[in-house]
Amino acid sequence: MIVIMKMNVTADDIAAVQTYIESHGLQTHLSTGQERTIIGVVGDKTAITDGNILRLPGVERVMPVSRPFKLASRDFHPENTIVTVGEHRIGDDQITVIAGPCSVESREQLFAIAASVKEMGAHLLRGGAFKPRTSPYSFQGLGEEGLHILAEARDRTGLPIVTEVMSPEELPIIEKYADVLQIGARNMQNYALLKAVGRSHLPVLLKRGMMSTIEELLMSAEYILAHGNSQVMLCERGIRTFETYTRNTLDINAVPVLKELTHLPVIVDPSHATGKWNLVKSASLAGIAAGADGLIIEVHHQPELAMSDGAQSLKPRRFGELMERLSRIASAVDRTVQ
Amino acid sequence: MIVIMKMNVTADDIAAVQTYIESHGLQTHLSTGQERTIIGVVGDKTAITDGNILRLPGVERVMPVSRPFKLASRDFHPENTIVTVGEHRIGDDQITVIAGPCSVESREQLFAIAASVKEMGAHLLRGGAFKPRTSPYSFQGLGEEGLHILAEARDRTGLPIVTEVMSPEELPIIEKYADVLQIGARNMQNYALLKAVGRSHLPVLLKRGMMSTIEELLMSAEYILAHGNSQVMLCERGIRTFETYTRNTLDINAVPVLKELTHLPVIVDPSHATGKWNLVKSASLAGIAAGADGLIIEVHHQPELAMSDGAQSLKPRRFGELMERLSRIASAVDRTVQ
Amino acid sequence: MIVIMKMNVTADDIAAVQTYIESHGLQTHLSTGQERTIIGVVGDKTAITDGNILRLPGVERVMPVSRPFKLASRDFHPENTIVTVGEHRIGDDQITVIAGPCSVESREQLFAIAASVKEMGAHLLRGGAFKPRTSPYSFQGLGEEGLHILAEARDRTGLPIVTEVMSPEELPIIEKYADVLQIGARNMQNYALLKAVGRSHLPVLLKRGMMSTIEELLMSAEYILAHGNSQVMLCERGIRTFETYTRNTLDINAVPVLKELTHLPVIVDPSHATGKWNLVKSASLAGIAAGADGLIIEVHHQPELAMSDGAQSLKPRRFGELMERLSRIASAVDRTVQ
Amino acid sequence: MIVIMKMNVTADDIAAVQTYIESHGLQTHLSTGQERTIIGVVGDKTAITDGNILRLPGVERVMPVSRPFKLASRDFHPENTIVTVGEHRIGDDQITVIAGPCSVESREQLFAIAASVKEMGAHLLRGGAFKPRTSPYSFQGLGEEGLHILAEARDRTGLPIVTEVMSPEELPIIEKYADVLQIGARNMQNYALLKAVGRSHLPVLLKRGMMSTIEELLMSAEYILAHGNSQVMLCERGIRTFETYTRNTLDINAVPVLKELTHLPVIVDPSHATGKWNLVKSASLAGIAAGADGLIIEVHHQPELAMSDGAQSLKPRRFGELMERLSRIASAVDRTVQ
Repeated sequence: MIVIMKMNVTADDIAAVQTYIESHGLQTHLSTGQERTIIGVVGDKTAITDGNILRLPGVERVMPVSRPFKLASRDFHPENTIVTVGEHRIGDDQITVIAGPCSVESREQLFAIAASVKEMGAHLLRGGAFKPRTSPYSFQGLGEEGLHILAEARDRTGLPIVTEVMSPEELPIIEKYADVLQIGARNMQNYALLKAVGRSHLPVLLKRGMMSTIEELLMSAEYILAHGNSQVMLCERGIRTFETYTRNTLDINAVPVLKELTHLPVIVDPSHATGKWNLVKSASLAGIAAGADGLIIEVHHQPELAMSDGAQSLKPRRFGELMERLSRIASAVDRTVQ
Repeated sequence: MIVIMKMNVTADDIAAVQTYIESHGLQTHLSTGQERTIIGVVGDKTAITDGNILRLPGVERVMPVSRPFKLASRDFHPENTIVTVGEHRIGDDQITVIAGPCSVESREQLFAIAASVKEMGAHLLRGGAFKPRTSPYSFQGLGEEGLHILAEARDRTGLPIVTEVMSPEELPIIEKYADVLQIGARNMQNYALLKAVGRSHLPVLLKRGMMSTIEELLMSAEYILAHGNSQVMLCERGIRTFETYTRNTLDINAVPVLKELTHLPVIVDPSHATGKWNLVKSASLAGIAAGADGLIIEVHHQPELAMSDGAQSLKPRRFGELMERLSRIASAVDRTVQ
Repeated sequence: MIVIMKMNVTADDIAAVQTYIESHGLQTHLSTGQERTIIGVVGDKTAITDGNILRLPGVERVMPVSRPFKLASRDFHPENTIVTVGEHRIGDDQITVIAGPCSVESREQLFAIAASVKEMGAHLLRGGAFKPRTSPYSFQGLGEEGLHILAEARDRTGLPIVTEVMSPEELPIIEKYADVLQIGARNMQNYALLKAVGRSHLPVLLKRGMMSTIEELLMSAEYILAHGNSQVMLCERGIRTFETYTRNTLDINAVPVLKELTHLPVIVDPSHATGKWNLVKSASLAGIAAGADGLIIEVHHQPELAMSDGAQSLKPRRFGELMERLSRIASAVDRTVQ
Repeated sequence: MIVIMKMNVTADDIAAVQTYIESHGLQTHLSTGQERTIIGVVGDKTAITDGNILRLPGVERVMPVSRPFKLASRDFHPENTIVTVGEHRIGDDQITVIAGPCSVESREQLFAIAASVKEMGAHLLRGGAFKPRTSPYSFQGLGEEGLHILAEARDRTGLPIVTEVMSPEELPIIEKYADVLQIGARNMQNYALLKAVGRSHLPVLLKRGMMSTIEELLMSAEYILAHGNSQVMLCERGIRTFETYTRNTLDINAVPVLKELTHLPVIVDPSHATGKWNLVKSASLAGIAAGADGLIIEVHHQPELAMSDGAQSLKPRRFGELMERLSRIASAVDRTVQ
């Protein structure tokens, strides 16, 4: 931690800051510049916060030096974490493709889509049974019946299931059916939920909040890791910006940044990141070209009848075309699809 | 709902869109311009979504006409909602001031602060027992013990208590102690929690998410109202922007906008909206000048020792000065502070 | 400047950074923490940039300590700058109100509006002759004829004139007519223009870019000051955020922040900051309550016929009501309106 | 244009809006829904603006239907525009790579870099002689001497030159040396400059402002096209968001969106879009995978001594590695690099 003093402070002000810091068991280190004095702080900072020091007379700014995440950091865990789901290894050389509808709507719907994406080469099946919807009047998902249908689709296709958990109370029932727990963007800082999935035996796909920084995403992953679950995948799904032509802005920079800062696998969600089916292919290819470990893509056989996210769902034929192109891009960055 | 067709579409495309819409029990209304055809849609739109229509050939854009919130809308409820807490009426001519520490840290701390803010003229006491913290390693609040201390402080001062609920599981215990339930910014779209407090008998202070639009805030209020709780207050607490000099950007425009769109009381949180104690006074005065019904302000008697939000907490003396100035501003907009 | 080294760097890496910095005539100061080494840099940093040091092996981050603006800084110029326009002193206890139409449209239009705002108590008259318009097909202003009309309005009312300059080439002609030069938000970083007005004898009203930080605004002011013109006023006119209900988001926090960081007067533009006439009053009152030295407000006698900004222009009667309320708010913060 | 009336308006209000619109030579078209009436407006809207109609009693919102750009629109010009520079065709199947230093610093510097990037396969040489700098105290470029050096580098390598023009006054001298005129992000809405380059015979590389929407970028292109210059290339160079880990956020979605909306070539600037040399490769590959026609990349042989943008410049060896990888990505999307 570095404390920057205001210009023209007195020697007494500086001494008082040092005394305060040292009284909390830390050491200080003075550096006197032309305009300002800065105080380096060495030791365990759990006893005091930036905000405390900012309140001392003469202090202008306090800057952290260490990163606040440890378990998620590549500094402390240099090799890639590989998350294993069934026989599939996520975070390895092979690209992972998760596909399926936004919501489970019916047996017929899910079975049709699951069969298609399986045939086109998807590795996992997505589908929501409990749905976070902006409006209380929108379709809220089929609930446990949806989980049932997902499990049946897994039996038919062999594809492991990724489904969202919205509340600690739903977790026990979802754990009975799911292979991967998804935490949605709106719940990225729902700490009760993070702690709950941190105690689960299932891998977690943690989506970045639409206005959360990369560091905050890693801090939310840290919650899960700190509660005992090391099987965490991060998902860049677009952030909210001033641009309204697309639903969100895919932060493609976040892909190489995350690969540098953390050992956890990075998945891109081109469907939410664009909000428009005709942009999904470009965003998918860009994601893999930038270094992502996988994609999670919304597919629907009848998007004009979908109960949610019809605008951004690919039809199976388009998804198949994307898979072919994806193979070529993966190979151009020395990776493979299946 | 209005459907805008692409340029140069065929008459068949237009007819197909009309047929699709009418097959869902709605009426259509054609308007042919110089460049484009637009189709007005009249009737109950719960059967189809924007996303469905966007998938039909030739459709360029779909624009909503009606607002998605009803119970929260002033269109359907023109007179102000007054939320009553003890003898205090929030949303009336009188300005409400909620003050207290970020976190309940100890009996001594809370009693000292509660006595001060009571003396300076605060109407309600704030204090967190369950704390949402970015880091799993930060102080997470005293839990039920904190609630106990809050109740004791209420007994001593007569100030009703506002405290945060982070999860549906915590609600029963918090309801035993609290007078007002606070939903924090990070949980504004935690729908399980919104439904739970929607079934509570206690008033709710709903904070705007730092990444949420005014309309989304109103949709989250709609969740609470639709589940049966009509005692909802909205809180503008600053949004996230590109400006990093302050912790958040107080969206002062949101105050008159909300007063226009909704009948619910509007509270401003100048502490989180600025992140710096020395900006709190300006933000508070601006909030009331702009038409807010009240303020929620962090106060700490020893901010250099506070376990959270030390940088943005006012000392009691400063809070007292603010209360005096506030009276004058309130009077300038024909309102009063007690 | 502070250099933060990566974890686990070698002593040679550290020594190489020190050697590099010292070879540019600066001194270094080492502080060895538990995880990382930081290097304080003391001396004149014009010879090297952050970017240069970032390229040395083992360097993780470089953080500035000093602020990059000097002439604009209150650290070096503690007392307020007062900008004098005619007999009016801007930045003093008295609040300044600049009012008038977005564009000069005709003699009749400007004379009618000028007479109204004069009568209601405005101190300066605004009006654009050269207009920055997003579309090349929109009305681009009357040009020099507009300046003529502005000068005539000044003769009739005694109100000094504020008008925008968009290009160094227009400056000589505008200087012949104007009392204050306005730099628009889109030109805040048009450095050729900043240098040109820096050499002018007229005061400058510099508007913040819609996505410019407070520090960037001060750096643009620094350009003008460094080229010899000390009569600079800053204008907060709303920033661009994700919220689309209003045209811009008034960054009300910027008012007290600017008053703290700089000695230059701060003006708020509630018209552009909201984009809607019915929000202008609230934003104006909030601006003065937060500590601004003045307001610049769009007024039009026939907004339904205005050639630009009709939606956000006040009618004279509404402007008059605002002026009355403004007096009361000014008095509540110990200031006056005329 | 569509006018949405407020709920509960009177028939007289509706009639008055119709009368107003029709009095300006337009036709209206009424559609009466359950809650609201909407009025479609057909005809030439140059006589009235959205803002005018918004001022009429009972009007809630006004929504545009047509896009405001025409010459830049693919609707009116379906085939791709190919910009020819020397023998190089930009916007064709072949990917264009523009490389070179941020600033021309000296003869030796530019010649060394030019020779390297030529050898590695770049097609055009970039380099700034007139530099837009946030600080008035930073290096402002070599001016005409820099242009001279650029011309010499062209003679030696055969690479055409791309250089920035900051002001209409500089245009004549820059036109004597340059092959492509660059408009920087900060000048995207400097309309005097857009008009000036619109009259030039040289192609223009127009960078998106860091605060500008895709539509605003196209409107700025429209300015250039409307003034007679059809040789315009668009450049996505990152936008400003809340994320501060990177200098800007590369809006990768903008690439396919622009390719859909306009016929103009689209170039990605991975250097400014990331601000960090180690992210440039990922951003470059993502840009081409997403459909961009080319890249503009900062390269410096001694970034630790660069006078600007050292942090984001690739060394020639890294640039060479990128070019190799780029070939493979280009081929995966059925394009080529030379």
